[in-house]
Amino acid sequence: MNKPLRIGVAGLGTVGVGVVKILSERAEFLSAASGRPWKLVAVSARDASKDRGIDLTGVRWESDACALADADDIDVVVELIGGSEGVARDLVEAALSNGKHVVTANKALIARHGIALARIAEQKAVSLNYEAAVAGGIPIIKALREGLAANEISSVAGILNGTCNYILTEMEATGRDFADVLKDAQALGYAEADPSFDVGGIDAAHKLAILASLAFGQEVSFDDVEIEGIENITAADIKFASEFGYKIKLLGIATRGVGGIDQRVHPTLVPTGSPLAAVSGVFNAVAIEGDRVGQLVLEGRGAGEGPTASAVLSDIVDVARGLVMPPFIVPTDHLKAPSRANVERRSSPYYLRFNAADRAGSMAEITRALADASVSIERIVQRSEGRGKSDGRLPVVFLTHETDEGSMRMALKHLSKLEDVAGKPLVIRIEDSGSR
Amino acid sequence: MNKPLRIGVAGLGTVGVGVVKILSERAEFLSAASGRPWKLVAVSARDASKDRGIDLTGVRWESDACALADADDIDVVVELIGGSEGVARDLVEAALSNGKHVVTANKALIARHGIALARIAEQKAVSLNYEAAVAGGIPIIKALREGLAANEISSVAGILNGTCNYILTEMEATGRDFADVLKDAQALGYAEADPSFDVGGIDAAHKLAILASLAFGQEVSFDDVEIEGIENITAADIKFASEFGYKIKLLGIATRGVGGIDQRVHPTLVPTGSPLAAVSGVFNAVAIEGDRVGQLVLEGRGAGEGPTASAVLSDIVDVARGLVMPPFIVPTDHLKAPSRANVERRSSPYYLRFNAADRAGSMAEITRALADASVSIERIVQRSEGRGKSDGRLPVVFLTHETDEGSMRMALKHLSKLEDVAGKPLVIRIEDSGSR
Repeated sequence: MNKPLRIGVAGLGTVGVGVVKILSERAEFLSAASGRPWKLVAVSARDASKDRGIDLTGVRWESDACALADADDIDVVVELIGGSEGVARDLVEAALSNGKHVVTANKALIARHGIALARIAEQKAVSLNYEAAVAGGIPIIKALREGLAANEISSVAGILNGTCNYILTEMEATGRDFADVLKDAQALGYAEADPSFDVGGIDAAHKLAILASLAFGQEVSFDDVEIEGIENITAADIKFASEFGYKIKLLGIATRGVGGIDQRVHPTLVPTGSPLAAVSGVFNAVAIEGDRVGQLVLEGRGAGEGPTASAVLSDIVDVARGLVMPPFIVPTDHLKAPSRANVERRSSPYYLRFNAADRAGSMAEITRALADASVSIERIVQRSEGRGKSDGRLPVVFLTHETDEGSMRMALKHLSKLEDVAGKPLVIRIEDSGSR
Repeated sequence: MNKPLRIGVAGLGTVGVGVVKILSERAEFLSAASGRPWKLVAVSARDASKDRGIDLTGVRWESDACALADADDIDVVVELIGGSEGVARDLVEAALSNGKHVVTANKALIARHGIALARIAEQKAVSLNYEAAVAGGIPIIKALREGLAANEISSVAGILNGTCNYILTEMEATGRDFADVLKDAQALGYAEADPSFDVGGIDAAHKLAILASLAFGQEVSFDDVEIEGIENITAADIKFASEFGYKIKLLGIATRGVGGIDQRVHPTLVPTGSPLAAVSGVFNAVAIEGDRVGQLVLEGRGAGEGPTASAVLSDIVDVARGLVMPPFIVPTDHLKAPSRANVERRSSPYYLRFNAADRAGSMAEITRALADASVSIERIVQRSEGRGKSDGRLPVVFLTHETDEGSMRMALKHLSKLEDVAGKPLVIRIEDSGSR
């Protein structure tokens, strides 16, 4: 039998515990699958006394995670601490620099420092694997790094945050509003006490930045992701969308735009019946368009102990089998510099909702404002049932024809000057990417 | 730069031509992704004079495919000839025996001789990669061999034949019958002149046998797959199913049954709204249940030049990157011997349709026959609109509660003795596997 693979795990939260469990329960299989025994040599976590329900007999405990990076008896460091800076970053950097393979579930770290870390990994000819960082148990990194290497990718669109998808699904099912459902999600453990990372779209943006780099062969560039969360979506919007034949999903979308790569996370109307519209609850899904493969959709659980640990283990299997590849498919010096599409030139149909005075002439003014900005209307819906909630004003919803973003901004400027329009209109893009 | 990867391609049909195109168009990228240049050294096909729209300047032409297996200047043989015996088998066997890596799209070959070939590959420490053999462009083999290695799989269920799915989708959309739609599919090139391999379920069974082996760690055993095609499905069945909230799909299903692995390909009622029900036209999809990952669904194009060539290329990328693994995840001597579940003990709800005499007492006799076999009825539908077509008899449809297969066989025996029941009932299993 070949040399054992010696593993160090940093971070024993939910996922870390899941990883340690699989290492022990599937030891024989994993060893057969990779042609060498696996050995958990050391772990590191904050509290050594806590009972985590796992047997760590014979496993060294390091109070300083970075000691794993220096240990002579460790081949692969599994980083499950989290956060783009601090210990997690120091550990991964040191481990790679010391010629150790790294497996991580840390999306923030890869989204912000992935390229710098990949450079070290390439120099040292070791692996930097991060399957668990995006979409939990869905093998999406493997699909892009390996499975689709023959393809030019034209678009990646995904439901990348289970918390948001759970909230939107619940809002749709129950007709309740955002704040209300969020509270429930927090009680159920589906949302954090501070939910802003999830519902604000940051988490999805971290994942999208990673996918975009793999899909388009350019350096990961989180700062170029345009981000909008789901906080302003109301139950009424979901109902309107449904009447029009759409569902509202928080999508991360990356495409080739005018002048660069277009990366954005925002609520989106997707056609009912499209694969992404059918993804409900805490599930994640990613739809990829490749020139050879056509559309490929992968759907599964995006978080939780089992799915995330499953992804971490698949990364370790690759290391154990001796596969070392450039972390971003091609060596970093082959990646293009970050680019950003001209968003003014980006175009799509739009959903537009606001409250307007219920008086003769008001609709004429509004439609004139839209027309002056070259925004062409496909459908208008006005409902009296919303009256009263909004000072005698009525909710009005417009679906537009394909409109470029510059025109839409102009239209919003015009609308803001109308006395009959109350507050800031809610604007949601309509996307057919991800539909069959 | 490292040593070039020297490639020989046998078979220049649609897929072979697609592979050669990608080798030339994506050469730079593939070389960067694998750290070594790729070189197409030789090809082999029947007709050297045919214009295939590809440039083969400088590429050696071998009239005998098996010469590729003997050539000193070839590292990987790509077998795209097809068929489980003859040249394809000889070539793959010889190439592996000579220590060359093999990439193949040949499902029949892997379903029938996969284990014997894997033994040779393991002995010689070379790759036997067959991503393109199952579900075209969907990276399902990669998902099972690598991505899900940490999981105990409990079920694999898939739409594995695009021809059948296209026919069923068309029958549903247009209300036309099987024979009619098949003719169109043939004219469009979606079905072969002799369609029996596809519509009879053999092709799907080849693929299922491969997936079942990977999922359950036992030797591939095509002979243990129970196979039923879609030839007896009528437009009326599709309509009835739809009224009950189901779609009819040809599924390949592998599960752990009583006493062994249960492998079967048959028309199946799947709940509308489940991921597999939503898969239409020539698309394929596979739903996997793993103990850690939960449900994972992969959907994409199952055939055609682009998707299949994309899969072949991903297999070559793995070879180029130096990944060599046991073809069936673990070495063949770790695989369990083929086993076959006791089908009498398999159970599911059933859809049952036949024509029955429209007379007083007939339904009493039928329901008595079912009750005597312990088959419990969930729903009965009888329609007068079918009268006349069937000699005054009316179509009757039953949905049963969960019933084991032994009881259903007994029920069918009882029904066959009733004068009021005409012909052989159509029996379709109802499966919730693949539903969320």
